[in-house]
Amino acid sequence: MPLAQLPAPPYYVVTFASQRTAGDDGYGAMADAMVALAAGQPGFLGVESARGADGFGITNSFWTDEAAIRAWKANVDHLVAQRRGRADWYQAYAVRVGRIERAYGKTGD
Amino acid sequence: MPLAQLPAPPYYVVTFASQRTAGDDGYGAMADAMVALAAGQPGFLGVESARGADGFGITNSFWTDEAAIRAWKANVDHLVAQRRGRADWYQAYAVRVGRIERAYGKTGD
Repeated sequence: MPLAQLPAPPYYVVTFASQRTAGDDGYGAMADAMVALAAGQPGFLGVESARGADGFGITNSFWTDEAAIRAWKANVDHLVAQRRGRADWYQAYAVRVGRIERAYGKTGD
Repeated sequence: MPLAQLPAPPYYVVTFASQRTAGDDGYGAMADAMVALAAGQPGFLGVESARGADGFGITNSFWTDEAAIRAWKANVDHLVAQRRGRADWYQAYAVRVGRIERAYGKTGD
């Protein structure tokens, strides 16, 4: 997954770190569907995601404001995915929500 | 890498997303050394990191305040690693610094 192309700060981030349980159990398809669904939500700016062979992963999604984040959390299809995640897919996870204040980097060629 | 055990918000995050170049070229040893060095810095709270088989990775480090983040960025050994990273290890990267305002999750067993 490439770097997200984001506007200049400020904007908001949801960092979602998770340890997957063993087996797919429908996870991969749902994860893809949730990224596509999130990308269509008001206030969505971009998403970056990585997961290692040990099953530990981080997804950072970026949003214009806190209201957009709360609306996404309450999306009915997303609520179904969240329930499956808590019950079946994640041994442990942490969600942290914050305001990005500055950013810099190096773009690829 | 497990979830970081963090205090209640507020605290600060540095999200570092990167696309690795091919080959190790000293990267793995330096990455391990930088995590160990960061963990000893004033204001360090924790770190989480994941990198997929495609070479795209995210490392989120957590800090008490912006001053701690700036001091870590200016650490002389870290400056050497940053220079190697820009020149050799990262095809592209993005650093985003923000203030985490709320957090929740599910702890493992």
